[in-house]
Amino acid sequence: MSEPQAFIAAATELLGARGFATDPELVSPWLTDWRGRYSGRALGLASPASTAEVSAFVRLCGEHGVPIVPQGGNSGMSGGATPDDTGSAVLLSLRKMDAIRDLDVAGRQVTCEAGVILQNLHDLAEKNRLRFPLTLGGKGSATIGGLISTNAGGTQVLRHGTMRAQVLGLEAVLADGSVFESLIPLKKDNRGFDLKQMLIGSEGTLGIVTAATLRLMPEIGERTVLWAGLDSIGSAREFLLLADELVGESLEGFEVLPAHCLESVLAHVPTARSPLAGAHSWFALVELVAAPGQGEALRQSAENLLTMAMERRLIEDATIAANEAQAEAFWRLRDEIAPAERAIGPAMQHDISVPVSTMAKFVEQVGPEVEARFPGTTAVGFGHLGDGNIHFHVLAPKGAVRGEWEASTGKQISAFVHDRVTQWGGSISAEHGIGQMKRDELGRLGNPVALAMMRTIKNALDPKGLLNPGKLVPLAPEGATP
Amino acid sequence: MSEPQAFIAAATELLGARGFATDPELVSPWLTDWRGRYSGRALGLASPASTAEVSAFVRLCGEHGVPIVPQGGNSGMSGGATPDDTGSAVLLSLRKMDAIRDLDVAGRQVTCEAGVILQNLHDLAEKNRLRFPLTLGGKGSATIGGLISTNAGGTQVLRHGTMRAQVLGLEAVLADGSVFESLIPLKKDNRGFDLKQMLIGSEGTLGIVTAATLRLMPEIGERTVLWAGLDSIGSAREFLLLADELVGESLEGFEVLPAHCLESVLAHVPTARSPLAGAHSWFALVELVAAPGQGEALRQSAENLLTMAMERRLIEDATIAANEAQAEAFWRLRDEIAPAERAIGPAMQHDISVPVSTMAKFVEQVGPEVEARFPGTTAVGFGHLGDGNIHFHVLAPKGAVRGEWEASTGKQISAFVHDRVTQWGGSISAEHGIGQMKRDELGRLGNPVALAMMRTIKNALDPKGLLNPGKLVPLAPEGATP
Repeated sequence: MSEPQAFIAAATELLGARGFATDPELVSPWLTDWRGRYSGRALGLASPASTAEVSAFVRLCGEHGVPIVPQGGNSGMSGGATPDDTGSAVLLSLRKMDAIRDLDVAGRQVTCEAGVILQNLHDLAEKNRLRFPLTLGGKGSATIGGLISTNAGGTQVLRHGTMRAQVLGLEAVLADGSVFESLIPLKKDNRGFDLKQMLIGSEGTLGIVTAATLRLMPEIGERTVLWAGLDSIGSAREFLLLADELVGESLEGFEVLPAHCLESVLAHVPTARSPLAGAHSWFALVELVAAPGQGEALRQSAENLLTMAMERRLIEDATIAANEAQAEAFWRLRDEIAPAERAIGPAMQHDISVPVSTMAKFVEQVGPEVEARFPGTTAVGFGHLGDGNIHFHVLAPKGAVRGEWEASTGKQISAFVHDRVTQWGGSISAEHGIGQMKRDELGRLGNPVALAMMRTIKNALDPKGLLNPGKLVPLAPEGATP
Repeated sequence: MSEPQAFIAAATELLGARGFATDPELVSPWLTDWRGRYSGRALGLASPASTAEVSAFVRLCGEHGVPIVPQGGNSGMSGGATPDDTGSAVLLSLRKMDAIRDLDVAGRQVTCEAGVILQNLHDLAEKNRLRFPLTLGGKGSATIGGLISTNAGGTQVLRHGTMRAQVLGLEAVLADGSVFESLIPLKKDNRGFDLKQMLIGSEGTLGIVTAATLRLMPEIGERTVLWAGLDSIGSAREFLLLADELVGESLEGFEVLPAHCLESVLAHVPTARSPLAGAHSWFALVELVAAPGQGEALRQSAENLLTMAMERRLIEDATIAANEAQAEAFWRLRDEIAPAERAIGPAMQHDISVPVSTMAKFVEQVGPEVEARFPGTTAVGFGHLGDGNIHFHVLAPKGAVRGEWEASTGKQISAFVHDRVTQWGGSISAEHGIGQMKRDELGRLGNPVALAMMRTIKNALDPKGLLNPGKLVPLAPEGATP
């Protein structure tokens, strides 16, 4: 490896002073992830303005043996875009590449560069009476490249799938600097391996996404949001199946939460009100959508659904949001769970999934198991029942000290939860990815054959190991320290 | 490599006399593809009965250096399941593995082994008031494993996608005999590369599919089939966009054909009748479907669609099938095109795709180009307009001798068509795969970066090159003889 100074000089010559920064004031904001959990150092911050520049820069890094940490909006959940603390790597920001290359309104697809921010894509779609059917909390900073590299989820996965389902075409720079270009979307193409699938969700370890062609959908005209009280999460599962049968084509979201979560929100948010008068053990929040002008039919469908669910005793009570303000209020009860739980005290949060058909049982059985094994804790499972994706939070006993508890008992709890999820055939990362946070847990619990395939593919496509090292792929054999 | 006899003895010991055949009467029917275009030789025919047996057999082949040609229903279109004529390979039939491992009616998914025949899966689904949303001509012999390995298409891709979209989970035996097991479907799972995507469509060159979990859908209750006459394929494209806008959720199929194709069918099938009285340059066949009991609403939607299309002058005339018999008759006009064209004389058939938005232009421009370049030929493009997948047939001049013409001028025509398709950003194989038929054309015309990635992945996952050698992956560098 050459001296860092030689690399810095060459990078500056290649990208210009604006394209390659070493000034700590410019670089350091990007060396820590947005939640402040991971921090690292870097030789500099590269901000190429084109695919050709990314390609040339990756070649340069290869020549100098400099590892590359690609970064979009720096709003990831697993430290996947933060370099390690050796300072040997370089940050490669895609934020400057934010052009919309092509918008085909009639064909409902858009080709945009990796640095386009999700919110801007939403705005563009909306202006053209279309929508991009994926959204999440970090939409003001998350970039298309990052969303693709992490196969992001969000609140519309039930109906529209994760980011993978939105990607029609892809452009990426590979480890040797060559440009994989497959932006033209063909609905049918059987010319060999579907290589773009390999790049989606690979967290920058196989290639650097520089642009993508994404599908757009017709705008939503109407929505109906309903709130139901239930006796158990098992009933919620039955209710979901009924909803899928009766109004499957309109079913945009199906979230569940236990009474504990609602109570936390009501205590935390002074203006929040429970939508139903009575007490219930569980609640379901359901959103149905339809094309413009079909609001009345949609409401009728929602009422039919509730009538039948009541008849079959799947739900105990329910109400339909009377207007958009009430719909928003219902959703806020769901969205405020995480902050409300945090306000109570320390908690370990787990982004896990199990097969949809077993989610109810998982929550019913593993919750009490955790509470028995770690006395004083409270386990709550809530979230995307329709996706089998649970936010499984374990709240610390009263009086637990933040920071200290997470690092000791909290860590044991997470290992316990991950063990159980794996035994149940589930995933220790439903939508947040692996990054550096869960890489060792993946190495510990991942399917050995799948891990071996991942290592083989990683080593073959990035033989020098320069693309986002230390992330996602547990390179060392299972059990060994990587 | 050990002596063939030693391998045969070991294989017979492993699988039993019923599981490993060398008797030519048992083996030879599977050494030629169903259309009789490709023929080869083999050491024997292995018919393992379980994933464990496949795994052990693949290990044995690895020890003896014996190449493996996996085979399902032997109904592929590109010679992908036929061994070469060296006789050094072994045929591995998955047909004996035909168990349904699990059927989840409520969750609408089925886990079945690779050898399950598509028609049997349809029957099973139907019995449970569900359907499997992929079908094609060879459904009586095509197996699930083969359909996955070739990422098969068919007539319902417009609405439901290719086989890739139906696969929720996968089990496959890799080149080293290890079993990749990912059958439990998680709707959200971000634990690294989506390895099953790499196996789907890899034509047995990366692994041997032994089982899969597939999605099922609610049964179709009602369908409405309509037939429209148009002035051009460009108008058909506009008509498709309107249909997508107005009845997109119900749009199950959208096929187009030129007058030439209809005339061929009317001449070839004595009982066939043109649905419309007048003459038109192009025709569109559209199928809309809906849940049981919604037939009246569906018919109303179809009438609205036709009224608006007439008002906008996208179509010249149209009729809605009055009953199921008439709907079948409309579809028969489409399905009989290939046999009717064949009856006229020799023809080169091309399974190609271009971006949906350019399909109309492609047919309008490249058809006359071909006819000018190869005097006396007639170029007709018809098929899945909604998928951008054209069956582009070039009919020989009158008097051309079958066999002779295909091998000489026909071959030049195919190369010319493939060149044009590639220039138009399309695919030389939309749904039939590459196999041995198009491997060299893929090597000649494929994107060099994509080809290099394919070779790298193939070599990494199958370093001895024993999985279906000579198929799909053009291993030699571009231009060289493989």
